[in-house]
Amino acid sequence: MTTENHICSPDFDLWQTIRREAEAAAAAEPMLASFLHLTVLRHHSLDRVLAFHLSSKLSSPIMDARALFEVYLQALSDDAGIIKAVKCDLLACFERDPACDEYSLPLLYFKGFHAIQAHRINHWLWNNGRKTLAYFLQNRSSEVFGVDIHPAARFGSGLMLDHATGFVVGETATLGDNISILHGVTLGGSGKESGDRHPKVGDGVMIGANASILGNIRIGEYSKVGAGSVVVSDVSAHTTVVGVPAKPAGKAADMPAAEMDQRI
Amino acid sequence: MTTENHICSPDFDLWQTIRREAEAAAAAEPMLASFLHLTVLRHHSLDRVLAFHLSSKLSSPIMDARALFEVYLQALSDDAGIIKAVKCDLLACFERDPACDEYSLPLLYFKGFHAIQAHRINHWLWNNGRKTLAYFLQNRSSEVFGVDIHPAARFGSGLMLDHATGFVVGETATLGDNISILHGVTLGGSGKESGDRHPKVGDGVMIGANASILGNIRIGEYSKVGAGSVVVSDVSAHTTVVGVPAKPAGKAADMPAAEMDQRI
Amino acid sequence: MTTENHICSPDFDLWQTIRREAEAAAAAEPMLASFLHLTVLRHHSLDRVLAFHLSSKLSSPIMDARALFEVYLQALSDDAGIIKAVKCDLLACFERDPACDEYSLPLLYFKGFHAIQAHRINHWLWNNGRKTLAYFLQNRSSEVFGVDIHPAARFGSGLMLDHATGFVVGETATLGDNISILHGVTLGGSGKESGDRHPKVGDGVMIGANASILGNIRIGEYSKVGAGSVVVSDVSAHTTVVGVPAKPAGKAADMPAAEMDQRI
Amino acid sequence: MTTENHICSPDFDLWQTIRREAEAAAAAEPMLASFLHLTVLRHHSLDRVLAFHLSSKLSSPIMDARALFEVYLQALSDDAGIIKAVKCDLLACFERDPACDEYSLPLLYFKGFHAIQAHRINHWLWNNGRKTLAYFLQNRSSEVFGVDIHPAARFGSGLMLDHATGFVVGETATLGDNISILHGVTLGGSGKESGDRHPKVGDGVMIGANASILGNIRIGEYSKVGAGSVVVSDVSAHTTVVGVPAKPAGKAADMPAAEMDQRI
Amino acid sequence: MTTENHICSPDFDLWQTIRREAEAAAAAEPMLASFLHLTVLRHHSLDRVLAFHLSSKLSSPIMDARALFEVYLQALSDDAGIIKAVKCDLLACFERDPACDEYSLPLLYFKGFHAIQAHRINHWLWNNGRKTLAYFLQNRSSEVFGVDIHPAARFGSGLMLDHATGFVVGETATLGDNISILHGVTLGGSGKESGDRHPKVGDGVMIGANASILGNIRIGEYSKVGAGSVVVSDVSAHTTVVGVPAKPAGKAADMPAAEMDQRI
Amino acid sequence: MTTENHICSPDFDLWQTIRREAEAAAAAEPMLASFLHLTVLRHHSLDRVLAFHLSSKLSSPIMDARALFEVYLQALSDDAGIIKAVKCDLLACFERDPACDEYSLPLLYFKGFHAIQAHRINHWLWNNGRKTLAYFLQNRSSEVFGVDIHPAARFGSGLMLDHATGFVVGETATLGDNISILHGVTLGGSGKESGDRHPKVGDGVMIGANASILGNIRIGEYSKVGAGSVVVSDVSAHTTVVGVPAKPAGKAADMPAAEMDQRI
Repeated sequence: MTTENHICSPDFDLWQTIRREAEAAAAAEPMLASFLHLTVLRHHSLDRVLAFHLSSKLSSPIMDARALFEVYLQALSDDAGIIKAVKCDLLACFERDPACDEYSLPLLYFKGFHAIQAHRINHWLWNNGRKTLAYFLQNRSSEVFGVDIHPAARFGSGLMLDHATGFVVGETATLGDNISILHGVTLGGSGKESGDRHPKVGDGVMIGANASILGNIRIGEYSKVGAGSVVVSDVSAHTTVVGVPAKPAGKAADMPAAEMDQRI
Repeated sequence: MTTENHICSPDFDLWQTIRREAEAAAAAEPMLASFLHLTVLRHHSLDRVLAFHLSSKLSSPIMDARALFEVYLQALSDDAGIIKAVKCDLLACFERDPACDEYSLPLLYFKGFHAIQAHRINHWLWNNGRKTLAYFLQNRSSEVFGVDIHPAARFGSGLMLDHATGFVVGETATLGDNISILHGVTLGGSGKESGDRHPKVGDGVMIGANASILGNIRIGEYSKVGAGSVVVSDVSAHTTVVGVPAKPAGKAADMPAAEMDQRI
Repeated sequence: MTTENHICSPDFDLWQTIRREAEAAAAAEPMLASFLHLTVLRHHSLDRVLAFHLSSKLSSPIMDARALFEVYLQALSDDAGIIKAVKCDLLACFERDPACDEYSLPLLYFKGFHAIQAHRINHWLWNNGRKTLAYFLQNRSSEVFGVDIHPAARFGSGLMLDHATGFVVGETATLGDNISILHGVTLGGSGKESGDRHPKVGDGVMIGANASILGNIRIGEYSKVGAGSVVVSDVSAHTTVVGVPAKPAGKAADMPAAEMDQRI
Repeated sequence: MTTENHICSPDFDLWQTIRREAEAAAAAEPMLASFLHLTVLRHHSLDRVLAFHLSSKLSSPIMDARALFEVYLQALSDDAGIIKAVKCDLLACFERDPACDEYSLPLLYFKGFHAIQAHRINHWLWNNGRKTLAYFLQNRSSEVFGVDIHPAARFGSGLMLDHATGFVVGETATLGDNISILHGVTLGGSGKESGDRHPKVGDGVMIGANASILGNIRIGEYSKVGAGSVVVSDVSAHTTVVGVPAKPAGKAADMPAAEMDQRI
Repeated sequence: MTTENHICSPDFDLWQTIRREAEAAAAAEPMLASFLHLTVLRHHSLDRVLAFHLSSKLSSPIMDARALFEVYLQALSDDAGIIKAVKCDLLACFERDPACDEYSLPLLYFKGFHAIQAHRINHWLWNNGRKTLAYFLQNRSSEVFGVDIHPAARFGSGLMLDHATGFVVGETATLGDNISILHGVTLGGSGKESGDRHPKVGDGVMIGANASILGNIRIGEYSKVGAGSVVVSDVSAHTTVVGVPAKPAGKAADMPAAEMDQRI
Repeated sequence: MTTENHICSPDFDLWQTIRREAEAAAAAEPMLASFLHLTVLRHHSLDRVLAFHLSSKLSSPIMDARALFEVYLQALSDDAGIIKAVKCDLLACFERDPACDEYSLPLLYFKGFHAIQAHRINHWLWNNGRKTLAYFLQNRSSEVFGVDIHPAARFGSGLMLDHATGFVVGETATLGDNISILHGVTLGGSGKESGDRHPKVGDGVMIGANASILGNIRIGEYSKVGAGSVVVSDVSAHTTVVGVPAKPAGKAADMPAAEMDQRI
């Protein structure tokens, strides 16, 4: 049995919990009651809340919020795997981030969570032949979240992107499940050639702030990349690497992504 | 007599100086006259200008600017220490940044200054039991300024955050007085445990671009952290550290935050 | 014959190509037809499209889009060199970025391209005595693009800024022609003294993600700065440097900016 | 066989005709291409175009366009009679208004048409227990269209409200089919008592500009009320009335609503 | 004892009643919960709700809502008579309009009520030397409400303006207390001479839809002007006038403004 | 020598006068300084101020203000007669309206003035083959000003439309020079036939509030139509008509449009 399955099968009703949290927040904070009713309380599913919230953030005077809301609903309805991954990401944030004690916090206020979910839908657009729209929305995510993820990149579930600003992911990168990534991380390419040229990151990995991982290399499962490191070659599973360029510095914790210790 | 006291007791009327600068700018640049009248010239105090300008920047179609303006005024009125710190920060920018030759420039146009002041008020919200609103506004600062500061973090006065993008500060971090910080700096945690887990930065410190300081460590007074360094252990006062991981590299200048030399 | 001349003299009609790409995209993607007609198809020159698109992005409730559009048109009309450099940048993106297979993609969706062009016009404002407006727009670029370029910095043509978030350039920095720069790069100063204090980057250089180049130093032609490096002294031409602090690590490729290999 | 059935059974595809008109207009007028794509061309049914266009007009900074669009779609989906009446109204405008030579003109640009359709949906809200929302939208119609129709008023189909400004209809008023009404017309009450207190207007009637019809009276079929008249008692079928107060002035044309002659 | 005193001294807490109505509406209608929280429920007085709601309606991209909200609060705070009159107007609507069964309905949704209150504050601006702002807001009321009231006109309390569109009031007009006015009514001047040149309307009068009252004439107490009438000479108290031009047509009801029978 | 020539040749610099008025207003009223700088003071001609102000009013989330501003500038540049007529209208308002003591008041705040000028440009669009755009903007004028003027209608200069709400003009109507019209006036048609079917109004005429003039009839020079009248047949020059239907009631004043006495 994988960690993911464990994490993603909560023994409670996530949607109802989020609703209750939003109701309590609306009652306690009049300044947010309006936002919470519009964004959460008048809806009847997590899918709709996510689609509404992301369309609030990524619409603009030249991209109508109604059109964007509908395309997001369409993606979530067409591919049931997206909302499943969304839930795993919510649970991951709750579990791994000590500053996160409500499920509604990442949903409503964590930029890294928003950027990941915007990418999940963008990836669906890309796979459904709507490349120009995917480019448009990649650009909006880059402006609003400071996060630039190529729509073709493949992401697992149970991901946490903490703080988020400056996260960059190239076209052929792949992320496994249950990965934790800090802000400023680059999963970049090795040059101007096309083809498979970006990193493949295994399950359970943790990548510290401002680390750069460059080229078509493998970051083994449950390994850890120290903050500020620059990785240009494969990393074995269960290994910590640090430095510029990064070198092995010992065995990693059992579950680096859950430990969230980016020290080197 | 401390540097802070010196810096924060200008022998001129700061508010009137700012007004005069704004009047001159409005006369010289027709494109900005409208903005300057709305934001500065029709107001009668620095408090109101700051509250108005920040509410312009952090409001959105789902967060009414009127409501935000009022809560900012309320904070500034309730805690007189905030505007005092705001003034010290203005003076710090003027004194330390060679590209800053008017007091109104940081007030109106420097993203790092805006992010610091938004945090000061957010910290007041947090301490006054309005945690959800503080989370909401932390998120807005992260979207608009690219700066993610946990509302519980404690900041001294006389701070300059230059360029700002990517600055991240954790929940239990503490900043002393008269500190200079470049963009991309992380004051991060040591993992998923709660409790005191973020850096404590002493007075007069300078932290170079993209440096990461991780864990509950002390950065001694008047020390300097080189650009791109990753610091995971205490730094003595008056010391320069550089590298990944950072190591001592000699004595720092007398006033690193004032010198602003982030070279290593 | 220089590389620049070669790159900047396409044997096709760039504007008509962009129009055709926009027409095809509008026909294929109904969600974008409205945006593409407003931004591209109703205009009759690249100048107007650029001015319109940038004013869409940098206007705000307190900076009227009409006023901004006009000042952009005025700059492009006054200095014919700007649009020439814009075209070189478009060609550079097309040539160097494997994820870019249409000329309209950087024009419409690449944040780094937008930030560079916003700076080119901002530099014109600065040189024409409109310093306050230049500060205002530098701030807007910093908020919207996460890119902070002092309006006085001098840029060559054929530049590509990839991903862009966190790019910082100081007042006296200079960029030559045909340079490629990744996100998170700093061309920073050496302290609070005024005067010439920022880097001078030669033609054909490539600078990897999150690299910091600090002080009035020269980065020789066709050299390469590895990702995450911190450079504090001159770099010879045709040389690769890496590390914190950066040290020579061999000869660079013939055309680093065209190769785009930021590995170290 | 009634006039209505004749009018409402066009021997062509109304939706495809409207699409073709919008395509031609978008090709001919670049200024409107953006609007026409957003509002008409990216949709696949008249229902959606109407819901989108009305939600563009009646939304505001405090009534989200996405929420309004959805409630309009819901009404149109729940009661198929609404869109049937909408089509009859479109045909009526085309047939009766010499200044209307395309079916898309009333749909997109005629305020009277918009006000009537907004009321049709508002009436559905009223009948489905959503009275407060109906009041809210009645107010928005009054602000945007200058038309104040109580949501309880019952309207037939094949209606044309020309110019529209100042049209007022009370709670218990009833309009039959194929009626033409000019601007400034009042179907008002007889005092503060509740109960049935507003006019009942028969099929085929024409009411001239600024006419007031007051109290629970009957305006017989195919009668005509002259411009500026004040009617306070029943009007026989096929009769023209004029004056203040209005008096019979002869037999009306066979089809006053189709003739559109409001002279007296 | 006057009618006004009776009407304006409710034996219940008007503000708490309005709050309860808004709470019930927010609970019953999710589409309005956001609006009701923002506009009513987060405030603690009727003054603030009115100031907020009017500033929502009359602000625009070139008139900041924050600035308008503050000037409205200032007026309401400076002249306690305004909110007193506002309350009388609310009670008048509730009492006289059979379609009004909650006190919050006119406050939130009746355009005539909004236009009257906007004028009350505009009159305060006029009397406090802020004539240009009063002109600006007169224009906004004319655009948004279709109601054009010169800021110098003096209004009593207990007024109901039903449906509102087209109501026009000249500079030297005066309205007494407890008057009911329908849409389209003109209280106009007698030519281009300045000086006292507009009607004086007594207590308890009712003026029917589209009636015009022209020149410096007196409309006696408790008289009634029929719909569509044109009045150019004095009207005795307790008299009904009708026609073009208007002539006496008998004794009026005891309380025409309360009866609301505009028939002739 | 005609009245028009006299009125339209002021012996002062109208544009400089307006600028001075706007400067004085901006200095006296801080709330309007921002609006006045944006709309008036940063421009260098009356054409640009008019184009800017009208595009502020008639743009919307689906009609970009930049595009509208440009088309207005284009019209004013192409047909020099428009701005000539605009100036005559300004002078007419100043001369005839006792509540108008500055030239900038109608320009900035009088809805009737705005509606007339929006029509002048709309008429240019109509004559230049841009009928759909003319319909779009006719609709926007109807929504924003409550004024519905068919773009084909021909207007002279020196017009004053006072209060404006409800003014309706049909396709083949013609207005001469120096006419004064009150709100609620209809220049309507005689039925559904196409062809010449609307009124022709001579020079110097005054039309009172809510008067309806219907069919292809002539209103002779310097005649007066009383408020609330309904005119269905020719009116001789220098004649006053009143009533429903209107009948001659004596000789009119020498200059009814200048006298502005709409009494009957």
